[in-house]
Amino acid sequence: MDQRAKAKRFLELHTSGRLLVLPNAWDAGSARIFEHAGFQALGTTSAGVALSLGYPDGERVSRAEMLEVARRIASAVALPVTADLEAGYGAAVSDAVETARGAISAGAVGMNFEDSTSDDRLVDVAAQVERIRAIKKLAEAEKIAFVLNARTDVFLLAIDEPESRFDEAVRRANAYRQAGADCLFVPGVTDAETIGRLVRAITGPLNVLAGRDTPRIAELERLGVARVSVGSGPMRATLALTQRIAQELRERGTYAGFTENTPPLRDFNRLFDR
Amino acid sequence: MDQRAKAKRFLELHTSGRLLVLPNAWDAGSARIFEHAGFQALGTTSAGVALSLGYPDGERVSRAEMLEVARRIASAVALPVTADLEAGYGAAVSDAVETARGAISAGAVGMNFEDSTSDDRLVDVAAQVERIRAIKKLAEAEKIAFVLNARTDVFLLAIDEPESRFDEAVRRANAYRQAGADCLFVPGVTDAETIGRLVRAITGPLNVLAGRDTPRIAELERLGVARVSVGSGPMRATLALTQRIAQELRERGTYAGFTENTPPLRDFNRLFDR
Repeated sequence: MDQRAKAKRFLELHTSGRLLVLPNAWDAGSARIFEHAGFQALGTTSAGVALSLGYPDGERVSRAEMLEVARRIASAVALPVTADLEAGYGAAVSDAVETARGAISAGAVGMNFEDSTSDDRLVDVAAQVERIRAIKKLAEAEKIAFVLNARTDVFLLAIDEPESRFDEAVRRANAYRQAGADCLFVPGVTDAETIGRLVRAITGPLNVLAGRDTPRIAELERLGVARVSVGSGPMRATLALTQRIAQELRERGTYAGFTENTPPLRDFNRLFDR
Repeated sequence: MDQRAKAKRFLELHTSGRLLVLPNAWDAGSARIFEHAGFQALGTTSAGVALSLGYPDGERVSRAEMLEVARRIASAVALPVTADLEAGYGAAVSDAVETARGAISAGAVGMNFEDSTSDDRLVDVAAQVERIRAIKKLAEAEKIAFVLNARTDVFLLAIDEPESRFDEAVRRANAYRQAGADCLFVPGVTDAETIGRLVRAITGPLNVLAGRDTPRIAELERLGVARVSVGSGPMRATLALTQRIAQELRERGTYAGFTENTPPLRDFNRLFDR
């Protein structure tokens, strides 16, 4: 499948009636592991990419670096790959368009686009709508079904009072949908009741983020969620394992953390052969 | 400390009488985790770097890509970093020198240099000696105590009959030492008795690779080993964890693999802030 066919297929996965489970890769190796596990598509995780490059999250990695990792990941697998591109790397409409153009050129079939800035404030709805429209216009000109996953951080950043968040998230999501977003991403919501209400109130496919307190996959599907992703969770789990391995090596002088339940190099060489 | 001071310090760590425990990073994130754990120096792992880039091991990653990752890792930490540069990316003496020059320019304070080719044959001793001499000559010209860790793969590749391997490994290691190598790396040996005999027969500091059957750190130190590294072990452990996370997500639709024992993003953001 070429990139345009993959994009079309990826868009269809949002409206199939089945929940799209999207693991998030931070490098080509994790992408290949997820592909071999049988998923239908992959996302990248900007926080995971930042951590693997040794930086904190939050646009500390440049647009060019983030797109370069997206390109590596998209090149390493046959699956559709959507790129997490934070708030688009710049406040101007032209920045958002430049970022989307880079994503398409990197082989991605969609992108995540946040409505918060790196200092944890929400972007004005009208400004975000304008940027979404511009990205969709670019995709139209490029004749690609580039899946724009518009994220609102109302819950994630705990904006204003708890009782006002639901309405504000729905207002934003529906404005983004109206502007052309293909999927609406509302991270930071874990209770089944609120997730169900979001599914009913938002006028397009809903993406939620899986974490410790999130209902399991089958329950999310029952609630009508269209897409679930895992963000930086798996990448952070590998960092935590690396911490435990380091601690064992330093304190006990033993190797269990990297020898038990760890296949030999030849197994991964075989798995990654291409 | 600047690069030359780090190189001097790194060389001293090989002759301090204490065992140098060297974890191997595959990206800047793992390097930062190892640095925070309190190690005195870091190596890279060429196999780990290859896997994280989605390739099998064995010079499938180009010299330029491998050096770029080494540069990222060396830039991400304050510790001395030595680069695993396989067989030097090319058979000519000039290839080995070009690779060493790239390593110094990437900020590394040393390199691993193997005597086997990607089709698992040993390089002629005389040819390897010539390359080692040329790398040391470059380091001298650059006025840096560039720590050349010359690896012989006699045991790793199970060359010829078991009873001839010890003598062949010692012959090679001592020829490399004579040519200027600062440390001699003999992976593939795990029994304490053979390790002790290698320490006594090799005329320079000995590096062994830690794996499942390797004596623990304290025992290696007692045997007189100068340096122990972990190769791609920790990186493969993170790939195996990613496989388990993927399988749990696909088969059970739950998230324990990336939520239990996994610190939140803000903890890693704080750890990686610079």
